[in-house]
This record gives sequence, C-alpha cells and structure tokens, in this order.
Amino acid sequence: MTKRNILAELDPFFHPRSLALIGASSREGKVGRRFMDAFLEAGFQKLYPVNLRESEILGVKAYPTVTDIPDHVDLVLILTPPAAVMGTIKECVAKGVKGIVINTAGFGEGGEEGKELEREMARIAREGGARIVGPNCIGIYCPSSGLPFLWSQGMESGSVGVVSQSGSLADHLTLIATRSGVKFSKAISSGNECDLTAVDFLEYLGEDPDTEIIVSYLEGIKDGGRFNQLAREISKKKPIIAWKCGASEAGARAAASHTGALAGAVPIWDGVLRGAGIISVKSLEEILDCLYAFYFQPLPAGRRVAIITGPGGPAVGTTDACLELGLEVPRLSEDTKEMLRKAMPPAGTSAENPIDLSLATVVAPDIYGEVIRILGREGNIDMLLVIGSGGEQFQSVIKEAARDIRKPLATAVIMYLESFIQDYTSLMESGIPIYPDPVRAARALAKLADYAEFRRRS
Amino acid sequence: MTKRNILAELDPFFHPRSLALIGASSREGKVGRRFMDAFLEAGFQKLYPVNLRESEILGVKAYPTVTDIPDHVDLVLILTPPAAVMGTIKECVAKGVKGIVINTAGFGEGGEEGKELEREMARIAREGGARIVGPNCIGIYCPSSGLPFLWSQGMESGSVGVVSQSGSLADHLTLIATRSGVKFSKAISSGNECDLTAVDFLEYLGEDPDTEIIVSYLEGIKDGGRFNQLAREISKKKPIIAWKCGASEAGARAAASHTGALAGAVPIWDGVLRGAGIISVKSLEEILDCLYAFYFQPLPAGRRVAIITGPGGPAVGTTDACLELGLEVPRLSEDTKEMLRKAMPPAGTSAENPIDLSLATVVAPDIYGEVIRILGREGNIDMLLVIGSGGEQFQSVIKEAARDIRKPLATAVIMYLESFIQDYTSLMESGIPIYPDPVRAARALAKLADYAEFRRRS
Repeated sequence: MTKRNILAELDPFFHPRSLALIGASSREGKVGRRFMDAFLEAGFQKLYPVNLRESEILGVKAYPTVTDIPDHVDLVLILTPPAAVMGTIKECVAKGVKGIVINTAGFGEGGEEGKELEREMARIAREGGARIVGPNCIGIYCPSSGLPFLWSQGMESGSVGVVSQSGSLADHLTLIATRSGVKFSKAISSGNECDLTAVDFLEYLGEDPDTEIIVSYLEGIKDGGRFNQLAREISKKKPIIAWKCGASEAGARAAASHTGALAGAVPIWDGVLRGAGIISVKSLEEILDCLYAFYFQPLPAGRRVAIITGPGGPAVGTTDACLELGLEVPRLSEDTKEMLRKAMPPAGTSAENPIDLSLATVVAPDIYGEVIRILGREGNIDMLLVIGSGGEQFQSVIKEAARDIRKPLATAVIMYLESFIQDYTSLMESGIPIYPDPVRAARALAKLADYAEFRRRS
Repeated sequence: MTKRNILAELDPFFHPRSLALIGASSREGKVGRRFMDAFLEAGFQKLYPVNLRESEILGVKAYPTVTDIPDHVDLVLILTPPAAVMGTIKECVAKGVKGIVINTAGFGEGGEEGKELEREMARIAREGGARIVGPNCIGIYCPSSGLPFLWSQGMESGSVGVVSQSGSLADHLTLIATRSGVKFSKAISSGNECDLTAVDFLEYLGEDPDTEIIVSYLEGIKDGGRFNQLAREISKKKPIIAWKCGASEAGARAAASHTGALAGAVPIWDGVLRGAGIISVKSLEEILDCLYAFYFQPLPAGRRVAIITGPGGPAVGTTDACLELGLEVPRLSEDTKEMLRKAMPPAGTSAENPIDLSLATVVAPDIYGEVIRILGREGNIDMLLVIGSGGEQFQSVIKEAARDIRKPLATAVIMYLESFIQDYTSLMESGIPIYPDPVRAARALAKLADYAEFRRRS
C-alpha cells in the first residue's frame, strides 16, 4: 500500500495563502458578518470577501463572485443559502480553488434529497481537483495560519488537535479550554462529511508534527475499519480523547438529523475504542477534565495514587472512586510515614494513605508543600491527588511544590463556586489541573493511568 | 414496640433557649473566635461564652465554667482541647445540660484509646440525662433557632435536612447550595458518633415536619438494620439523597482515620440503598446536582424525556446518556410535531425528539418558550431537558415558559465558564435547576424518575 501523503493532501485547508469568504457581509447579525469580524480579528492577510451586492465590507474590497478575484485562491468558506451552494462550488473549481469549506446547512441532515446533493457536490469538487469540508460545519481553526473559528479562541498555537462532527461542540470546547491555558494546533468541524471525513482528519492530526494530543467528537463513522486501524497506530504515539455519541437508537436518530451520520451499536463501539487505546469519555465536561490532565501533566509510571487532603470528608469518597476506577491507593513505606508524621501536626492528622493533613492546612497551607515533596520521592506512589479548600496561599504552595516532583499531580478544591473560577485560572496557568470535585480529578488521573498502561503494552 | 418520640428526645439540640460556647475566644484565628463570630452574626439570643481567662468576649459576658452561668443551659458546644473534654462533660451534666455538642477532635479517629474515652463520655452524659453529638464535628445548623455552622450559610429556613458524618462536607454543601437558593431546615454534622448517630438524625429528619428532602453523607453505619428499616419508611414520604462512602478497603481505612467509623462492602451497600428507595450518589457535585432537581422541581409521572436544544451537538450525547440512565427519549405524536414545525424555522431544525431548534435560537430565543409549552401538553412526555447557549434573553424565556408547565424541567447551558455562574444564579433563583453540562442534567432527571417510580410502587 502506497502511503498516502495526508499532510500534503489537506495542506490547502490548514495553510492557505489566500481565502475567499463567500457570503461575507457587513450586516450585523448575519453569519457572514460574524466570520468577517473573526477573520479581521485573527489578522488573516489575503482575505477576499465575496458578495453580489457589496463592493466593500468593513474596509476590505469585496468581489461579486469568486472568479472575479484577481489573485489565486487557495481556500474558500461558503456561507451562501443552500440553493446557491452548487453553483458556487462550480465557480470555485473553475477558479482552481483546492479547498472548499461549506458552512451552509440544509443538506444530508434533512434526508435523502440532501444526501444526493452532497454526493453531487463532492463529485464536482473532486473532478475539479478540489476537496470539501462540510457542509453544515463551522470550518477550520488553525491559529498558526490565522484561521479563526467564530469567536475569541485566541490565535496562539499549541499542541492539541481537535476533530469534531459538531460545530457547536468544537467551538465551545476550544473556547473553554483556551480560557484554561490550553492551546490548539488545529481544530476541524467536519459537519456532514460529504467528502472529507473525521477519519481523514484523524489521520492528518496523527501525522501532524504540531499535534501531540487529539480530541475528537464523533457521531457516526463512515469507515469503521480504517478508523480502528488508524486509531490503534496513532494511540501508540499520541493520546486520542474521544466522545463517541449516537450509539443508541434515539441517539442515532438525533445524529441523523444533526449531521446525517450513521451511528452504530454501543457495545461494538465500546470495544473498538478500548482496543484502539482511545481515552473514551461521555460528556463535554469529561473531555475537558481529561484534556487538562493530558495537556498539563506527564504520564504516570503506574496506577498507585496518593490522596492528600486538608478537609477530611472528601478523602473517603475519593478513595472509593479511585478504587472503582481501577487505581490503587496503596499503603506507604515506613520511611515515608515517618517523614510525614514529622511534617504534620500530631492531632487530627493521618500519615496513612489517604493522607489527612486536617484543617490545620487552613491556617498553615505550607504543610501541603512538604507532603507533596515527600510523596514525590515515595517509590510506592505514581500520582498525587491533592484536595484543598482553595485560597491564594494554597495555590502558591501547590505551584511551588509541583515544580519539585516528576509525577502527575491533580488538585481538587472544595469551595464556593464563585471563588473557584479564579483559583482555577491561576493554577491551570501554572500547568496544574484543578477540578471542582475530587471525584472528577480521580477520573482524569485514571484516564492518564489507563493510557500510560496502553502505551507500555504497545 | 413503643414508638420513640425522637422529635422530643433531640429537641434540645435544635431549639435550645440558651447555649454555652465552651472554649469561646476573642483571639483571631482560633476556632473559638470563629464560632463566636458565627453565633453573633446569626443573632442567637441567650449565648454564654465560657473561657477561664476572658471575662468578656466581643462584648458578651463570659464565664470561667459552665456551672458559673446564672441561667439554665439547654445546649453546649465544646471547643476545648481533648484533655479538657471529659471534665467539661461532667460539669455540663452537673449543670443539667441536655444537649452536648463536642467539636474537639482527637478521639476515636486516633485508635482504640480514643474509642474507649468516647464510650466513657457517652456513659457519663447519658447517666446524667444528657446526649452527645460528636466528638469531631462542626455541630448543628438550624436557621429557625439561630444556630449557625461556621460560615455564611444564611439564616433563612427551608425544607432540606442534612445529616453528615463529615463536618467539612456539611459545611461546604450547605454553603454552596445556599448560594443557589436552596434553604435548609436543619443540618447535623454527626462526627465520631460516640452517642447519637446519623441513624438517629435520619429518624429525626424523617419525623421533622419542616424537612421535606433529606441529604446524607455517610461513611460507616453502626446499626445497618435500623438504618435500612428507617430509610425504607422515610423514602415513602421524603426523598433521601445519600452518598455512602468508605465501602472499599482503602476507603474504610480513610473512614476509620477520619471519623472512626466502620464502613462495609460496596455490593451490600448498593443493594441496601436501592432497596430502601434512596437516591444514591457518588460525589459532592452529584449531591448538589440531585438536590437542585428535587428541591426545585416536581416528581415526573414517568421516564419519558423531551430533549430541546439550540446547539446541535450536545443533543446526541445527551440522548445516549438518557437511555443509558434508563430514561426514554420517545417519538412525539403527529399533532405535537405539526405544532413544533409551525413554531420553528424550517431550515436546520428537527421536530423529532431530540428537538433541534438550531442556532436560530441564538438570535430568536423565543422559540424555546413556545416549544416548552407545546411539550408541556404532549401526553408522551414526562420531563423536559432544555439545552441552550445561555444569555439573558434565553433565561427570561425559560423562566416564563416554565411557569406554564407542570412537568419537571432542567436546563443545561453550554458556554464559557465565567458567564455560567451568573446564569446559574438567576435561573436557580427562579426555581429552574441549571447544569453546566447536559449529561449532568440528564443524571439529575433520571434520579427524579427513579424516585418517582419508587414512590408509585410503595
């Protein structure tokens, strides 16, 4: 089998020198205006708005059709009404465009007639040497090339690649994670996939040297065999965090009307995902929780967690959760326990794992730092889960101690919802994942351990 | 069996006419100061600080010992060091105190010696006609009597009763829920339970006419048979949301060092909880998620959910989640679909369940209102799960429409974390539970449906 050069093949979508925005608009409230604002904000250089009635949009010269543009056009983003899409594709092909992204909805997700149109669109594009992303998608976010999504994801490049069959999910995921200091290499909203599919983009992200972690939201996959084989290979070098939906009968109904995708049965998918080493999650919240752990922390050498807590209550339930998730909460060596006893006040504390530092930590959060360093050296422990009541002092102690250890560390803070947000930002920015509930921290660590084990076995 | 009059028996703990704070202090950073501040802020009337060295604390006359107080004392809260506790109990008994709350830690959770001391404390109290809560607890929160916990829970009375073996959990739970508009009848931190146990307080809350919903955090239960029987009876009239921890070997180790409790095996407990109709949860976050649904919404007539969404992606995964949780996402009647089609724009929407209102809702959130009212009348639907992108208009539309229906409704908002908090407060205050992820909303609705089914069967 000749190796497909996927990076070269999809390059026009990620590194276009010029881009035409077909259906750009200066009118507030129109999606064409929203995209204009986004591209101007992102500072994309060779931007050509296309609009039949406007000759200038927000200070940028506009053209009536793509063929009127006096320059080569690498990529187009089509925002026109459904009825105009087919004609526009033909013009793009005539112009020699290589990449076509179709934002317009109202095709395959509406039924068989729309599916037939999609097949025709794909045929025309491919015969003309172009490829299509979409329809019914929000396009491609590639900060290094100045390609934005719809809102304020930021244009700093990072190591996370996203491929999502839902545009709103891709948009929200990148927005929320950006606020927590995560940076993205590329994000693709693949929509109805009349031509290029999530599996193509998975292959691209697998090869892409800028992408170290892959996040994927999938409803239905057209080529399950290729997905499975690719995912197995990619997982050996990069983690894939995936939410596979639409596996139930009603879920499949929703997926069909959402992106026109064919889903598949739950048990089959669960097996495929596990076998391929995929980090399988079941909600957007869980995608983010996992992403923070994989983005900010190293992989653990094993499954043994030390739970370190100030407030006593949460440690018990967190221990239960760890064990249910297949982690171990082992006893500590006598040397470590001796060191812990010296570091902690005598009353109300416990040097057994889970390690209870007691409410003394509220006035003296320094204790956390010393205990983290001791457990960083304990041979029986692979990961640390630190539970606190928050506060600025707590944060700076954790940040400092985390620098001295080489094991994954996650924090959970039990506190008012309001103040949580601030702590969250500050610790995350220092590369320490923080969760509003210790059970969520335990789940994220368990995913790290599961994947580390897959990597050791493969 | 003579029926125990639990309300009268425990009355001194909830409606004391006078209270002595033994170990009160004016020194900042001392727990005795924190409690003084809390009682003064709560406006508790007959408060007697006890301190050997201070004759006045924050403007309130203090006494060297409880026996020096020239008034009858109903309830005492002991904050003294462990070594002074036994003597203080004897003085309380001599004074004719009926209720003793021991905040001091360092007894049964430390080992056998502490457990022996606890048995002695309980014996002395009971022979003297008093009962003990604790040691190692934060006491009792009863807003109608002016009894505060440690922080700013607020002193407005409501219908939720809490019994928790963890003080920090009781404190955090009541604090966070208060911020979301939930109000409490009583909350008890039962600690090491040398005398009165969580089961006693469960019985109390079951009989208490002010309590309509019970929330419980449990590590170990001393009398499993009585717990089981009581829970079964209470669940027939009031929901019990319970987090039972410490069921794993390491969890039991944590529980032993935390409150000295004996836990028990996981599968046994799972069966007990289910059989007793208890709403079993596995984290503080899940307690809160459930509480909001039970507090703000009625019980559903069945398990059939309508999912109504603006952003398309989340509906598919939410549908999967509902089905995995044993809910149904049924097809709608032709009449309802016809009405829905009239209420929605034609392109990009779906009148099938899950109902996709499309991104049109971003500019025209009114669509949500009409669709909610239509599904409020659909005979095939018992509950509504509404997913949106937030915003003020979205909120007011939901609030208004929710008034017109008689079915449980939960909302989930997919948006920036920062802006979530505000939406959260505003909708919650109007009695509409809102979740940051639709899968969490689905879980809460599933618990409502499970409990409603238990009530129909029993």
